[in-house]
Amino acid sequence: MSLVVVGSIALDTVETPHGKLENGLGGSAVYFSYAASFFTRVRLVGVVGQDFPKKFVTAIEKRNVDTAGLEVVDGKTFRWSGAYEGAMNEAETKSVELNVFGDFQPKIPESFRDSDFVFLANGSPVTQRHVLEQMKKPKFAVADTMNLWIENTRKELLKLLKIVDGIVLNDGEARMLTGEANLVTAAKKIQKMGPQIVVVKKGEHGAMLVSKDQVFVLPAYPVEKVKDPTGAGDSFAGGMMGFLARQGRVTGGILKKALAYGTVCASFNVEDFSLRMFQKISKRDIDRRVRRFLSMMRVT
Amino acid sequence: MSLVVVGSIALDTVETPHGKLENGLGGSAVYFSYAASFFTRVRLVGVVGQDFPKKFVTAIEKRNVDTAGLEVVDGKTFRWSGAYEGAMNEAETKSVELNVFGDFQPKIPESFRDSDFVFLANGSPVTQRHVLEQMKKPKFAVADTMNLWIENTRKELLKLLKIVDGIVLNDGEARMLTGEANLVTAAKKIQKMGPQIVVVKKGEHGAMLVSKDQVFVLPAYPVEKVKDPTGAGDSFAGGMMGFLARQGRVTGGILKKALAYGTVCASFNVEDFSLRMFQKISKRDIDRRVRRFLSMMRVT
Repeated sequence: MSLVVVGSIALDTVETPHGKLENGLGGSAVYFSYAASFFTRVRLVGVVGQDFPKKFVTAIEKRNVDTAGLEVVDGKTFRWSGAYEGAMNEAETKSVELNVFGDFQPKIPESFRDSDFVFLANGSPVTQRHVLEQMKKPKFAVADTMNLWIENTRKELLKLLKIVDGIVLNDGEARMLTGEANLVTAAKKIQKMGPQIVVVKKGEHGAMLVSKDQVFVLPAYPVEKVKDPTGAGDSFAGGMMGFLARQGRVTGGILKKALAYGTVCASFNVEDFSLRMFQKISKRDIDRRVRRFLSMMRVT
Repeated sequence: MSLVVVGSIALDTVETPHGKLENGLGGSAVYFSYAASFFTRVRLVGVVGQDFPKKFVTAIEKRNVDTAGLEVVDGKTFRWSGAYEGAMNEAETKSVELNVFGDFQPKIPESFRDSDFVFLANGSPVTQRHVLEQMKKPKFAVADTMNLWIENTRKELLKLLKIVDGIVLNDGEARMLTGEANLVTAAKKIQKMGPQIVVVKKGEHGAMLVSKDQVFVLPAYPVEKVKDPTGAGDSFAGGMMGFLARQGRVTGGILKKALAYGTVCASFNVEDFSLRMFQKISKRDIDRRVRRFLSMMRVT
């Protein structure tokens, strides 16, 4: 089934103990699209400036991605610069220039409005709602969010939670949103705020899914050579949503498998800078690692 | 098969957001024994002072625990006092009085020396080695350790690692011991220092097992009502070793199941102060939760 993502497209400068990349291709919608494109054709909505390299547009178009929603406007592309140290669990943001992304009012192309699966990558809940309102009859809409929106636009975020089917956020954000230290309780509280499913990302510690009738926990795939964690969360979401869209329906069992696929997509993504790993691997590599991951966890 | 544990017996004063307990029964060897006693008879070696309440001795004896190795000597019992806040991932130690535990030179009773399974709870690696040398022909000996020994008695710890079959430590300690930020790499490095198996405990984030031929990852059982995390690590080790001793052999598959049992024992233990949960539940409750835990993780 059709899948659309709306979010940032960025030029990232990243420094980790394993090297540095300047002005690499990045952004939540791009990581999401690359991961999801292994499973289904992805409809991408985002904005870049005149400085956005043509080769990046070509690279995105070469994947299974429909760029009809990629706007090029006057100005500079969104830029993020950050560094990771030690266990690399958290980025230290060095600078953020919103540029053209700051005024972005996403207009969903007519040809995208019938999308069944919708992913609202991290952004203002107001914008996320406006995007969702442009969709005809989405089957399964999931939003990502972050501390900034929880702190500054809480009311709008709560409104959004009432109209999405799922929310993806990290452990610290789940605690911040609910004021609840226990993660299971926090996720259940968020579930009561509206979304059918709540996915809590815990980075190298895995993920948790809470729905009305199940709590599902999954460790991260144990990766040894973490080079650059940028985009892990969006790759996770891309793998999950891509898998769901390919299946075309959302059941308890399919959700669990979707989380395993998301986990494995994230595990590949962190093994190199920018989108390099996704350029090197095939769907077959993903399937193989998912099988290994599941057998790793199997207790008989 | 027979299982012996050598470690601390303590009077703990613990404060958490859910209450306070003064001079409760505690200590690594006690938490371990309670958890392991669901699976097999446990041989306990430890020391207490004259102030140790008789009712605690009776309580321990009422379980499936052989107290022939419980020494009562002149002086005061080991006391620990700590507090937990927020997500309760780490205790803030308020005070430690080693008292009689400070000079403890464990003498293993003759009747315990033929033990097949040995657990050396957290203690000086010198003492841990002396204990192990008193055993006749242990089948599977596992040690726990902590930052104190990694920092101050590194050489002795490395010597110990060469003669044990397994080591249990937490994520921070694994990183400290190896200087390696990546946990999988750190565990593999420790495995190369001697022990066949390395178990990394990650608290609310689960556990990881690395052996020569497998990496196994397990999330924690999602507990909502965490009242007091004291003893979670030792309850985990007790469940794991108790299960292994009951099986009588250590294979890859049995180890995985042992980790699941350890995880579930820890999940019960944190639901109340001191050893209270273990006093309330039966082996049946543990089996039931293990089944639920495994089905929670099952992806088909």
